[in-house]
Amino acid sequence: MRVGRLTIVGLGLLGGSVARAARARALAREIVAVGRSGPGLGQARAAGVIDAATQDLAAGVQQADLVVLCAPVGALPGLVRAAWPHLGPGAVLTDVGSVKTDVVAAADGCGAREGVAFVGGHPMAGSERSGFGASEADLFEGRLTLLTPSARSSDHAVERVSAFWEAAGSQVRLLSAEVHDRAVAVVSHLPHLAAYALCRAADGDALELAGRGFGDMTRIAASAEGLWTDIVRSNREPVLAAIAGYREVLARWEGLIRDGHWDRLEADLARARAVREKMP
Amino acid sequence: MRVGRLTIVGLGLLGGSVARAARARALAREIVAVGRSGPGLGQARAAGVIDAATQDLAAGVQQADLVVLCAPVGALPGLVRAAWPHLGPGAVLTDVGSVKTDVVAAADGCGAREGVAFVGGHPMAGSERSGFGASEADLFEGRLTLLTPSARSSDHAVERVSAFWEAAGSQVRLLSAEVHDRAVAVVSHLPHLAAYALCRAADGDALELAGRGFGDMTRIAASAEGLWTDIVRSNREPVLAAIAGYREVLARWEGLIRDGHWDRLEADLARARAVREKMP
Repeated sequence: MRVGRLTIVGLGLLGGSVARAARARALAREIVAVGRSGPGLGQARAAGVIDAATQDLAAGVQQADLVVLCAPVGALPGLVRAAWPHLGPGAVLTDVGSVKTDVVAAADGCGAREGVAFVGGHPMAGSERSGFGASEADLFEGRLTLLTPSARSSDHAVERVSAFWEAAGSQVRLLSAEVHDRAVAVVSHLPHLAAYALCRAADGDALELAGRGFGDMTRIAASAEGLWTDIVRSNREPVLAAIAGYREVLARWEGLIRDGHWDRLEADLARARAVREKMP
Repeated sequence: MRVGRLTIVGLGLLGGSVARAARARALAREIVAVGRSGPGLGQARAAGVIDAATQDLAAGVQQADLVVLCAPVGALPGLVRAAWPHLGPGAVLTDVGSVKTDVVAAADGCGAREGVAFVGGHPMAGSERSGFGASEADLFEGRLTLLTPSARSSDHAVERVSAFWEAAGSQVRLLSAEVHDRAVAVVSHLPHLAAYALCRAADGDALELAGRGFGDMTRIAASAEGLWTDIVRSNREPVLAAIAGYREVLARWEGLIRDGHWDRLEADLARARAVREKMP
């Protein structure tokens, strides 16, 4: 797996890690970054992680074989529409957003262009840290990367994006954007909100007594709130459904505790433990 | 810090770790275990962690200088009442339960005996594993141990129990049983229920997509449900208050998301992150 020019739009934690992974594993002959000038671009160039940088999206993407959009999810649909007319023949466009329905719809809404295709992507890797300074060449190693091809994504494009992520160390899985968004609402977006909510509920003196369990459960509540607000906004209906389901479980347990139904509570906790033990 | 005879009632994860810590750090001349005969007692004796074992509570505690009750929280008040008449002059009784009000009340309800005292204790250390096989000599190293002396606990007894835990590697803090129980409801009991509830909400295909964040947040949902039902039952009112507060935060965020109040959601998440960042 090796492309000619790889263009990465946005050089934060994920974009920086895509660039580092591509450089470390020689996945591209040339790596171009598109982004606002900032400390990240300078660091990336100094470290030899990118070959060139530009603030001009059109110029950055027009010679690229593979373009990876690494901007916050709310910006992705607009970036797809802005980049689309400037992609050259044979170019494949993908992204790393945590929510897929809107960005896939934006690509499907662009006029068909011979030899140009979009495939939605989501490497399930991240950190509560952000910015290029937190990027790592091995961020995707051993992680799942989800691709959400639509009817408009060519087989060739799906193969190229799959091969890229596999070469970066990921296991690739294909699913629809809608199934993806409902699943991540439950296993990622809800847990983030649940962690933030535990911190809100624990403010005050109690916090001084917090131990390792609380620390582990709320680590992700150190994540940048702007990014998470953006993700929740982009995945509103599935997130609302996930919160409602979670509150329902808690309400049921509150009732069992209030009424002293200990056997039923224990049976419910046992079922929850069984779910946890299914995890790899 | 060194006592003559240390008696440990219950040789599971915590009791086993108390025995191992005491042996490794020479905190007692002699270590006696009281418990039902089972594989744990045999292993402990074979490993040289205990010197003797008995199933007879009265016989096990009567020559002891320090008795540590390491049974499930629901059993502690009864064990305090059962052990009390058999303690010899100068004996100090303590426990490792995660809930303190009931066990302290049980001790306060025992007839005064010259030179015999109880001090409630709670080492904030544990594991989702249980049983003697999971015990470790360093389990308490660097952890907080909370003591909840009542008006009936003598200074001498508080000093002896404090010195024991400090010698086992803990930092000791004193607080009232009521303040303790409200605080742990929020930073320990609620997070356990929240983790179990995330697993319940995530059952199904979504679970296959769960990543590291979900794994960290739900690690404690692998804990034994019987122990946690017992803890919740023993700390019912503070746990109900903690769940209600948590559900209120989630309900508010559900409303902000439904109504598209993104700035207010982001401000709330920022406050939650600030709480998380106050943690050591």
